[in-house]
Amino acid sequence: MRNTQSRIIPIRWDDAKGEVVWLDNTMLPAKEIYRSSKNIARFAKAIKSLELRGAPVLGEAGAFGIAMAANNSPNSVNLILKNVDEAGRYLFATRPTAVNLGWGIGQISCAVSDAAKKGLGASEIKEIAIDAAKKLQKDNIAANQKIGDIGKKLIHDGDVLITVCNAGTLAADGIGTATAPLRAAWSSGIEFTVLIPYTAPLYQGARLTAWELKKDGIPIKVITDNATGHLIREENVCAAFTGADRILGYGKDAGNVYNKIGTYNLAILLKHHGGKLYVAAPTSTIDPKAHIKDVRIEQRDPKEVTNIMGKVKITPKKVEVRNPAFDRTPPELVSGIITELGMAKAPYSKSLPKLLSKKGSMVDKF
Amino acid sequence: MRNTQSRIIPIRWDDAKGEVVWLDNTMLPAKEIYRSSKNIARFAKAIKSLELRGAPVLGEAGAFGIAMAANNSPNSVNLILKNVDEAGRYLFATRPTAVNLGWGIGQISCAVSDAAKKGLGASEIKEIAIDAAKKLQKDNIAANQKIGDIGKKLIHDGDVLITVCNAGTLAADGIGTATAPLRAAWSSGIEFTVLIPYTAPLYQGARLTAWELKKDGIPIKVITDNATGHLIREENVCAAFTGADRILGYGKDAGNVYNKIGTYNLAILLKHHGGKLYVAAPTSTIDPKAHIKDVRIEQRDPKEVTNIMGKVKITPKKVEVRNPAFDRTPPELVSGIITELGMAKAPYSKSLPKLLSKKGSMVDKF
Repeated sequence: MRNTQSRIIPIRWDDAKGEVVWLDNTMLPAKEIYRSSKNIARFAKAIKSLELRGAPVLGEAGAFGIAMAANNSPNSVNLILKNVDEAGRYLFATRPTAVNLGWGIGQISCAVSDAAKKGLGASEIKEIAIDAAKKLQKDNIAANQKIGDIGKKLIHDGDVLITVCNAGTLAADGIGTATAPLRAAWSSGIEFTVLIPYTAPLYQGARLTAWELKKDGIPIKVITDNATGHLIREENVCAAFTGADRILGYGKDAGNVYNKIGTYNLAILLKHHGGKLYVAAPTSTIDPKAHIKDVRIEQRDPKEVTNIMGKVKITPKKVEVRNPAFDRTPPELVSGIITELGMAKAPYSKSLPKLLSKKGSMVDKF
Repeated sequence: MRNTQSRIIPIRWDDAKGEVVWLDNTMLPAKEIYRSSKNIARFAKAIKSLELRGAPVLGEAGAFGIAMAANNSPNSVNLILKNVDEAGRYLFATRPTAVNLGWGIGQISCAVSDAAKKGLGASEIKEIAIDAAKKLQKDNIAANQKIGDIGKKLIHDGDVLITVCNAGTLAADGIGTATAPLRAAWSSGIEFTVLIPYTAPLYQGARLTAWELKKDGIPIKVITDNATGHLIREENVCAAFTGADRILGYGKDAGNVYNKIGTYNLAILLKHHGGKLYVAAPTSTIDPKAHIKDVRIEQRDPKEVTNIMGKVKITPKKVEVRNPAFDRTPPELVSGIITELGMAKAPYSKSLPKLLSKKGSMVDKF
């Protein structure tokens, strides 16, 4: 059995030193540097400066940050509660729109306050915080593995596939989300090739996904974002696997997928050539309330477009720019949504609520 | 009337100094630097290193290069003929696949040898060479103006348009080819906006087309190649105007358009949203013989993809790359081919030969 995702650990808790260790994404792919700290301010800086990134990994970062705040405290329940509260606010302020970061912070903060209410002692509470953060990570990794096991059935010997951006280990831990079906299929001995588009303006495809899949030995070809249609036709690409930032789950807009800009291009190009677009994401990505009209697509700094990677100025001065960070792919272009609870297909207004009903009490969190 | 293309001269003959003057494309958009030389080796280096580029401009470069070789010669008909022949071979070797370069060299070399056969003297022959090169440029500029006059009828107040790469003044002289309808419409007072995609891996859209159209005051927005589909939908883009490197003209493959990689993506994305793709090119771009099976798409250096503009290494080491320079857009995605002799529409196997028949004796050159 081929080994996949064997050497990349985006974040972990170091028991011996009582600190968080993380892989500095900003140095990739040139250098693979693990950072570590038990200092909340340093860790907050790591989150703010994108040394750590990706929705699920940010959830883990929030969890480990709170565990660290508890663990750093003197052995006083009141001081632990005070420090956890302060650390939570401080860490969340680094990326206030990152829903998962807040969720991870909230999960461990809750575990701490529950333990305090039960009258447990300081050292027990610290242990509970650390264990809860580890469990959150473990559950996350297990969910991705399930996505892989479900999604790999869609991949066959000789397939040429395509992806976009990075929804791999670096963003989601374990075998990633978009990369999960690829890695699970590769582990099963299936032979295929993956085209990896640049994903301008931050080039996460070329920088991060290429680095991840190359480590696993999966055959890849890096291409520009411009070459997708031509190569989908010339290399008979049959499917794309992408992640998702938000999936509308209920009502008439169910099945609309918000993901990194470029996903919608791929969806149309695949449709035109008879290929399929599969979205791989945990059920936590499914938004049970919002409709298209509620979702505002973030416009990012024009400098990302005018100055490539902050290093190459490519436009004339004072040029106007449009830099949407995400796009929306409508359900008619989505062949399937692969989650840890199964794959949903159209009509999504029926299949997604059905999938979520399997989560039982977890749905309550919405 | 708005002024367009008022300040960009990609190449010209300087009568007073007897030398060629050209705008160094490699310094754009950061610096607008005109170079000049009467030295054939220096001029060849300019062509080789892409200080001058674009099919029609390379035709002019070949013509002015031969005029310069004749003009540099001593006042002996035999020496003029010898120097013209040597310069022609030397210049053509700089970019042996550039059909237009060879064509420009051939045109002026012919004029020189015809004049010699007629028994004209050395100084008359020099004058004929220079005049013939100037006329070739003038005809080229006039053809582009005609493309603009025909194509501007497709543009209306309030339109949002899109283009790809650079088929402007820098590549084609005058008001350019893809830019000709835009500039002609702008001169007529029509109000519209043009989205300009990056056009990776060499970013001619962001670097060159943005620079050209901004000079004219045409409202532009630079976008990544990934944002095309999303913005075509969100901004109601109604049409793309692109250039062409080669258009198949006859038989069952008529109307297939080879152009810079990314054109095919735009064609599919526009079709999906009910928009139109117009190709603007002189009739000299129409290939009367080749079929799809005869055309090999050039694969360029992988370093263009792995090292952005030679400055930012974005991929892991030793990664495989696919870097096709061009793509093929089939006729069913092409709403019209705008030439200096009129606009051809489907079925192209009828409309293109009909258009070419207007050229009369010019068709003979094929």
